[in-house]
Amino acid sequence: MFQKILIANRGEIAVRIIRACREMGIKTVAVYSEADRDALHTLLADEAICIGPAPSAESYLNMEQILTACVAMKADAIHPGFGFLSENARFAELCEKCHIRFIGPPAEVIHRMGNKSEARKTMMEAGVPVIPGSKEPVFTVEEGLKTAREVGFPVMIKASSGGGGKGMRVSYGEDDFASNFQNAQMESVKGFSDDTMYIERFVERPRHIEFQILADSFGNVVHLGERDCSIQRRHQKLLEEAPSAAISEELRERMGQAAVKAARSVHYENAGTIEFLLDKNKEFYFMEMNTRIQVEHPVTEAVTDLDLIKEQIRIAAGEPLSVTQEDIQITGHAIECRINAENPDKHFMPCPGTITDIHLPGGRGVRVDTAVYNNYTIPPNYDSMILKLIVHDKDRPSAIAKMRSALGELVIEGITTNVDFQYELIGDRDFEEGNVDTDFIPSHFPDC
Amino acid sequence: MFQKILIANRGEIAVRIIRACREMGIKTVAVYSEADRDALHTLLADEAICIGPAPSAESYLNMEQILTACVAMKADAIHPGFGFLSENARFAELCEKCHIRFIGPPAEVIHRMGNKSEARKTMMEAGVPVIPGSKEPVFTVEEGLKTAREVGFPVMIKASSGGGGKGMRVSYGEDDFASNFQNAQMESVKGFSDDTMYIERFVERPRHIEFQILADSFGNVVHLGERDCSIQRRHQKLLEEAPSAAISEELRERMGQAAVKAARSVHYENAGTIEFLLDKNKEFYFMEMNTRIQVEHPVTEAVTDLDLIKEQIRIAAGEPLSVTQEDIQITGHAIECRINAENPDKHFMPCPGTITDIHLPGGRGVRVDTAVYNNYTIPPNYDSMILKLIVHDKDRPSAIAKMRSALGELVIEGITTNVDFQYELIGDRDFEEGNVDTDFIPSHFPDC
Repeated sequence: MFQKILIANRGEIAVRIIRACREMGIKTVAVYSEADRDALHTLLADEAICIGPAPSAESYLNMEQILTACVAMKADAIHPGFGFLSENARFAELCEKCHIRFIGPPAEVIHRMGNKSEARKTMMEAGVPVIPGSKEPVFTVEEGLKTAREVGFPVMIKASSGGGGKGMRVSYGEDDFASNFQNAQMESVKGFSDDTMYIERFVERPRHIEFQILADSFGNVVHLGERDCSIQRRHQKLLEEAPSAAISEELRERMGQAAVKAARSVHYENAGTIEFLLDKNKEFYFMEMNTRIQVEHPVTEAVTDLDLIKEQIRIAAGEPLSVTQEDIQITGHAIECRINAENPDKHFMPCPGTITDIHLPGGRGVRVDTAVYNNYTIPPNYDSMILKLIVHDKDRPSAIAKMRSALGELVIEGITTNVDFQYELIGDRDFEEGNVDTDFIPSHFPDC
Repeated sequence: MFQKILIANRGEIAVRIIRACREMGIKTVAVYSEADRDALHTLLADEAICIGPAPSAESYLNMEQILTACVAMKADAIHPGFGFLSENARFAELCEKCHIRFIGPPAEVIHRMGNKSEARKTMMEAGVPVIPGSKEPVFTVEEGLKTAREVGFPVMIKASSGGGGKGMRVSYGEDDFASNFQNAQMESVKGFSDDTMYIERFVERPRHIEFQILADSFGNVVHLGERDCSIQRRHQKLLEEAPSAAISEELRERMGQAAVKAARSVHYENAGTIEFLLDKNKEFYFMEMNTRIQVEHPVTEAVTDLDLIKEQIRIAAGEPLSVTQEDIQITGHAIECRINAENPDKHFMPCPGTITDIHLPGGRGVRVDTAVYNNYTIPPNYDSMILKLIVHDKDRPSAIAKMRSALGELVIEGITTNVDFQYELIGDRDFEEGNVDTDFIPSHFPDC
């Protein structure tokens, strides 16, 4: 087992990883930017080292600085968390070269799944259903339009390197195709320095269903059931739950097998997530694979009673999975609300600032993952998510009731947050009845 | 189901009950003393009513005031929590007379089990093993000494109405018997207005093992396994765990059956606890029955995945148990540390005051039950317990590691607490190895 792990991240996920390491008896090294001197992860780790100024490019994305810190602090592994360098194949490769264990899949797999058109092709070859669309990438309006005609309108135009909702446009017909294609491509070039695009059929009001995968270096692959992450605003998840109200035991079995097949087809290793779209006819399509731990992993932990971060560490250390597919039971229902320092009345504009008072809910089945504390000043440089509130209870109605109670107790003063918005959301009749799709927020909260 | 429940308690247990009610869609009424205007339970309940001055006798023990409040607020049931009126048969009786449902067993059962010599007799008749000792109560030194000779020294001299360590003395021989008997009896007269005593064989360095019982009004009785509460100072529990490191599956089965038999023998209803002493030869003896929910119920909730407060409410509302004995599985290991505002270096002297900063641990498998918050002033009038930290993990070593990590994160400033003491305790080699008995604290921390 590792002696010391460097955590190449910040915020609640860095704290989450530090906790797992502590419990496993592994020493931790935090890296922090100049803006994060007082951050909880900096204070909580056994050792901490400053890696540069506040802008991520100069610190949390600075591979050389992080690797230098790792060598200097004699850490034998790096946990990248999510975001930042977690899906950077080059970074994983550099870790290997420095004889540092990257806690995640091999660089080659990250690279392959990070390229969306490549991933799509891989899945088609493996027999995993993908959304009908272009088999090859397209680069011009003309190529795109030709494919769109074959696929049939409406279509989704997507940047191959895209993510977080960037480089995506829906085209409803030939009239609006050219402008949408050009805008999406422009965004992609600007954001990802890549003009590779692809075209898919646009699935209307689908659910976002993703399967958690664990795979070890001995070829064992299991899935831990699904998460329903349909509640999104601008393609960013806001609330996640497990299991999904839309998935029957039989469909879970089929989708789970597809997810395992997908992971096997790329010789996947470590924790990963296969994201699917589920349409109104319960047909599912591979969307993408995330080759890292996800923000919403706690809902899966709640219903499976597994510690995914510890599993990641054990797998990276060469241990076999602690469970077989037969061992995995889905128990009860879990919901996670992402609490963001943002203003839902102003298009979810980030609202960093100083927390003048914080009071957390507690009690049975209530979990809080956060890196903020009383009088902490949230720096403006990073993601607006400041706290994850996770509840677990015997069924979906009980979990919703518990979340309502817990949100009602949560007090965060001094900054604007989406706590009230989340409270309203979980009280929505359609949400209570499980009638959700990715259009839920725009259709139910049109002013946001 | 009840429409509205009045909670005749304060502190974290009042908050715990409010949460359960909220989740069940039941309105809540808090009662509070003048010292508790800013208490969390007062703020959190749907309605709150002041019932008198700070001293408990004038508020939380004032039956008439509480019943008047209940009638005035139109609550249809009262949850007494623990302490205060929770084991007061007269109060349960008055509730019945006022057509208010008392969430607990019938008054007659409270009365019967509250009288320790009566309870002992009942258990002997039911065939539940009791510590060898007097069959009838004793009132004089002469009667006591006669019984002590029959039982054999060392003996425990106990007040029949005693509790919380009061009215108890060990006598090692005839020389010290008279003085110990007189002191114990004096304490009992002073504390409980009762001179009824009884004599038992003194079990040296036993474990305190208790079984959680649930019984409904249809005669269904189940046990939820044991809690090991051996870690005590002055007969007050400080740390509890489930399951016990000393209990095999076979012994759990036997003790559980004895506990169920004990509950059946008094036609028990609602949640209750059968406390046993377990000696070095794994012989167990009935000690007493607590006819209420206990402080340490969360460790049982963690390992059984049941909500005991909700079960209590459902049983009181006339519903059958939601589980059978076969449904109950003990999963993993849970530990609770009681965090008290007290000074372990000064004989655990209570240290009320103002909390100037509080930071709670969180993450997977960490539960916090508390009624304190930032800038809250702990009134000097009540129990020093201010927070319960509960962890749950796959086995005892993992739970200990998690508790260590969580205690390390817990920050309470402005007052003196036993956080560091608990940290030291769980790091003790004997504790880690599961070598605990009720003498653990005096023998390992002789200066306390």
